[in-house]
Amino acid sequence: MAALFNRKNYKEEEVTDLGLSNKVISLNQRLVNKDGSFNTVRKGLPYHQTFSIYQYLSSISWMKFCAIVFAAYIIINIFFAFLYFIGGEENFVGIKSSNEFERFLNDFFFSTQTFTTVGYGRVNPVGIYSNVISSIESLTGLLSLALATGLLYSRFSRPVAKILYSDNALVAPYKDITALQFRIANKRRDHQMVDVEAEIMFSKVENGQRKFFELKLEYNKIHFFSLTWTVNHPIDENSPLYGLTEEDYRNLNVEFLILLKGFDDTFAQIVHSRSSYKYDEIIWNAKFLNIYSTTDDGKSMIELDKISDYEKVLI
Amino acid sequence: MAALFNRKNYKEEEVTDLGLSNKVISLNQRLVNKDGSFNTVRKGLPYHQTFSIYQYLSSISWMKFCAIVFAAYIIINIFFAFLYFIGGEENFVGIKSSNEFERFLNDFFFSTQTFTTVGYGRVNPVGIYSNVISSIESLTGLLSLALATGLLYSRFSRPVAKILYSDNALVAPYKDITALQFRIANKRRDHQMVDVEAEIMFSKVENGQRKFFELKLEYNKIHFFSLTWTVNHPIDENSPLYGLTEEDYRNLNVEFLILLKGFDDTFAQIVHSRSSYKYDEIIWNAKFLNIYSTTDDGKSMIELDKISDYEKVLI
Amino acid sequence: MAALFNRKNYKEEEVTDLGLSNKVISLNQRLVNKDGSFNTVRKGLPYHQTFSIYQYLSSISWMKFCAIVFAAYIIINIFFAFLYFIGGEENFVGIKSSNEFERFLNDFFFSTQTFTTVGYGRVNPVGIYSNVISSIESLTGLLSLALATGLLYSRFSRPVAKILYSDNALVAPYKDITALQFRIANKRRDHQMVDVEAEIMFSKVENGQRKFFELKLEYNKIHFFSLTWTVNHPIDENSPLYGLTEEDYRNLNVEFLILLKGFDDTFAQIVHSRSSYKYDEIIWNAKFLNIYSTTDDGKSMIELDKISDYEKVLI
Amino acid sequence: MAALFNRKNYKEEEVTDLGLSNKVISLNQRLVNKDGSFNTVRKGLPYHQTFSIYQYLSSISWMKFCAIVFAAYIIINIFFAFLYFIGGEENFVGIKSSNEFERFLNDFFFSTQTFTTVGYGRVNPVGIYSNVISSIESLTGLLSLALATGLLYSRFSRPVAKILYSDNALVAPYKDITALQFRIANKRRDHQMVDVEAEIMFSKVENGQRKFFELKLEYNKIHFFSLTWTVNHPIDENSPLYGLTEEDYRNLNVEFLILLKGFDDTFAQIVHSRSSYKYDEIIWNAKFLNIYSTTDDGKSMIELDKISDYEKVLI
Repeated sequence: MAALFNRKNYKEEEVTDLGLSNKVISLNQRLVNKDGSFNTVRKGLPYHQTFSIYQYLSSISWMKFCAIVFAAYIIINIFFAFLYFIGGEENFVGIKSSNEFERFLNDFFFSTQTFTTVGYGRVNPVGIYSNVISSIESLTGLLSLALATGLLYSRFSRPVAKILYSDNALVAPYKDITALQFRIANKRRDHQMVDVEAEIMFSKVENGQRKFFELKLEYNKIHFFSLTWTVNHPIDENSPLYGLTEEDYRNLNVEFLILLKGFDDTFAQIVHSRSSYKYDEIIWNAKFLNIYSTTDDGKSMIELDKISDYEKVLI
Repeated sequence: MAALFNRKNYKEEEVTDLGLSNKVISLNQRLVNKDGSFNTVRKGLPYHQTFSIYQYLSSISWMKFCAIVFAAYIIINIFFAFLYFIGGEENFVGIKSSNEFERFLNDFFFSTQTFTTVGYGRVNPVGIYSNVISSIESLTGLLSLALATGLLYSRFSRPVAKILYSDNALVAPYKDITALQFRIANKRRDHQMVDVEAEIMFSKVENGQRKFFELKLEYNKIHFFSLTWTVNHPIDENSPLYGLTEEDYRNLNVEFLILLKGFDDTFAQIVHSRSSYKYDEIIWNAKFLNIYSTTDDGKSMIELDKISDYEKVLI
Repeated sequence: MAALFNRKNYKEEEVTDLGLSNKVISLNQRLVNKDGSFNTVRKGLPYHQTFSIYQYLSSISWMKFCAIVFAAYIIINIFFAFLYFIGGEENFVGIKSSNEFERFLNDFFFSTQTFTTVGYGRVNPVGIYSNVISSIESLTGLLSLALATGLLYSRFSRPVAKILYSDNALVAPYKDITALQFRIANKRRDHQMVDVEAEIMFSKVENGQRKFFELKLEYNKIHFFSLTWTVNHPIDENSPLYGLTEEDYRNLNVEFLILLKGFDDTFAQIVHSRSSYKYDEIIWNAKFLNIYSTTDDGKSMIELDKISDYEKVLI
Repeated sequence: MAALFNRKNYKEEEVTDLGLSNKVISLNQRLVNKDGSFNTVRKGLPYHQTFSIYQYLSSISWMKFCAIVFAAYIIINIFFAFLYFIGGEENFVGIKSSNEFERFLNDFFFSTQTFTTVGYGRVNPVGIYSNVISSIESLTGLLSLALATGLLYSRFSRPVAKILYSDNALVAPYKDITALQFRIANKRRDHQMVDVEAEIMFSKVENGQRKFFELKLEYNKIHFFSLTWTVNHPIDENSPLYGLTEEDYRNLNVEFLILLKGFDDTFAQIVHSRSSYKYDEIIWNAKFLNIYSTTDDGKSMIELDKISDYEKVLI
């Protein structure tokens, strides 16, 4: 029992689950995809409990979003057109229809004019029935369009970090030892980021059990993230990576999970980014190449297309 | 006085109140309900000082919210219709009414058309009186609909965590000792949560006095909350639970108050969740069953309907 | 130099300024008002650099806000009416005016109908001039009303804490010593607050120099703020209040500055509150009376009108 | 290896890059401009990956923003006018045009009336073609105006700190030693700021390599930022500035990077500010002049135009 709170042993014996499965599922499957999404499936709850319409409408493509808004617009207006239609022709002035289909079309267009509150007024409701329906429709229109426009703007102004990760993480020479390194940059030119923090979780599989370790970074926070940051975990004797070889990485099905957060000046908000490196994305005995140069007027310049460039080194 | 800042004794002697009553009210009553609301009543302040219309309109059911918006719409339009009505028929062109009630109805529908800015224009204000009223009404309409649509969208996009808690907390074997455990998962499929933190407050009643203790967790934070998290308080000799039996729990009217917070990717914001376990929701000598399995394509799968499943164990 | 970083002496010798003046201005004047505003005046910058129109429109009374919106509405429409007016009568159909003033009025009402996009259409622009102006006006209307409605909603949903402070702070018996205490509650019934933190700054004036000290609290954070919290600074030998008498408080022109922050469930955001107690608001040798009781169905009840109630005690 | 985690040496040997280039580019160029922007250039990514339309529209001048909104309004309406135009005259009632250009103008104005949903209704779509187009246009109008008004309001209510920095940083006498100091104030009169934190990064160039050090502040946080704050780094023997002369500053191409953050009461949000002082903006042996005085009614007053005022002192 004395050893229970000995930090090192404690971690090694970890058995409780921590948000990610410690059961080993498939060695080929990664825990976290390169884009930060998780490789997990949920079952057992009714669909409506797990589904978030807000999340869905926030994350689908613009194409899909516009299609849904447009389809909803059509459907709602068909519904109201139908209500006007069954009210009969005498409920409107200004409609001249030669047949029933044309009358329905006129009702439909009257409905769109009411729904969007454009209200040209050539076609006009007379009588209680059509006036009641159109009063309700114009209110409905304002409220449902508020959802559409709210979502539209929130999609447009969504505070997400766009981080460029190097394709590989390196085991690079660092002082007298080696270090695990990867390089990141802010994709967006003018979104200044400050107070950026990084966390690396190291995952390995031993005896059919997945274990997680948090890696200690040389610096886990930088104040200004204007150019690139080479996130650096020194592999000293306290590191859970200490003594592991390239072969071990493969056998232990190693994966490094990355979590970044920082304050984005433009969004005036904290933004996050996730990614991961699996054992086959680790380059041994290599170091990142310099991607800094200078412009003619003396400013620092980085070439972001070279962010993954490295060279092999002898250790 | 020497013992004053001895942490253990200090806590034990705690008498000042800490947000929750330390007076013992009723042993059957819980402090925090399962849904995170508090069992407290406030008195002594005038109603308008304690009432928050924003909170009210944000938290009522959608049904109620829509009813209130619709009722307000009717009432405001009746008010303006009345103003138009007393202005007399000569203030409008386009109204043909056979009686006073019909004229009021026409005024009402004209009002809704003005309030929603649909403005068909068959009925039209002429003269200063009706023009002034309708100018004010259209502005009023735009401003009050902004409240309604703002609330509507804020309700829709409200950043709340939907956490699934296991029905019971367990006193489970853990290493050489036991631990208090409960299991949580994120209900929503696609709302990724990161940096999730948990806090457990332990409450007991001794000598008619309620006391609170914060429990030290094995991990109080996880970086990725993609599957489940078994929150774990090891009951070692420093724990205020150390040595207590199931019988003691009942006698001390024990309750565990839970506070969770984490960053929700979809809302790009920190979300909270609260819950509690009372002594009769604690299962002794049990451990949670595995709910992980694998899909055919090698992804981790959890069966959320089994989150509360446990089996009794011998200790 | 050895003593430089001796924490206690270091603080005592503090001379650099820290956001609040360390020059002693007037002994009667408090630094922070009861409502949390500061007693400070700024000079020397041009008005437009220090004025924030957003702050102004966010903080004025509702009455004033509505008056400003209404006045702006009138003024903008007079401006556009004037433009229509100089365009001449031939630019519109539907206007029948017997004199110039009536024509201006008609232009004004047409303008309001365009600005709010109600557009009845009895009066209609014909010709390029009036059509161009009205195209611009309807866009202008939509944009400026967006400012008005945005401000309206932001005022309505403004995340501010409504904290009830006890009228006095007490020097109360606490264990074997005394403690400085004040009592707070959340005014709003249904805005649950969690993770509430308190900070007390102690300010005294000695030798014409104001000095600040942060007071160490028994608890500086509570997880649940459902009832009341008696914020408590034990006056032990490490406290800067140690040994001071009521007389000293007066002579040193003592003031306690309070800063509270916590997460408000309804706003899903962190909210702040500030206040202060001056030496003449400190009651010596008193303790707060219990304000807890129980409802018939066993819930905890607090009587908030008694939050300031105390009784004198012998020490 | 023993010295590796000796904090001081460790820092001195820093080689990995930390968000700002450690390659020395040009000694005349500063890393961070006075307004907080960075002197960096990015290359190598396709334009659309680095460009953020949201950031662009949020940060351009109001003049430019309005011009873009207006231009977009014109262009979209020309597009729809063209669609109406090719539909032919028979698609509308109410258009009387003597020539094609006049007809196009009429279509254009009908389009603006539809886009803004003002919909006067003198000109009216008849037939399917023009009704379909105008149904789509009114929806398009509502959605695109939501982007414009959303951006407008977000620009208006943008949570940015307006911090006034002293023109120079001073090396001032402080207790028995000296300290690096600069003075800041909140420009805005009524935006109260609390919990303001400061960080200073010291950058020097040695052997063609740029190095960064974080400077330890006397106080790195103040609770109330009502007047001014003299941010203070004592240059004791642990400081990386210890022993450096004015000459050294120039040779080492010294720059101090400033990062401030605090909670702004009006925005109810954390705001940031960045700036920097280069070696030629450091005044040696000087101290800031008092800028506090008192108003007639006893309030503290600061004269912000004197925030940079200092006097030379003998050391």
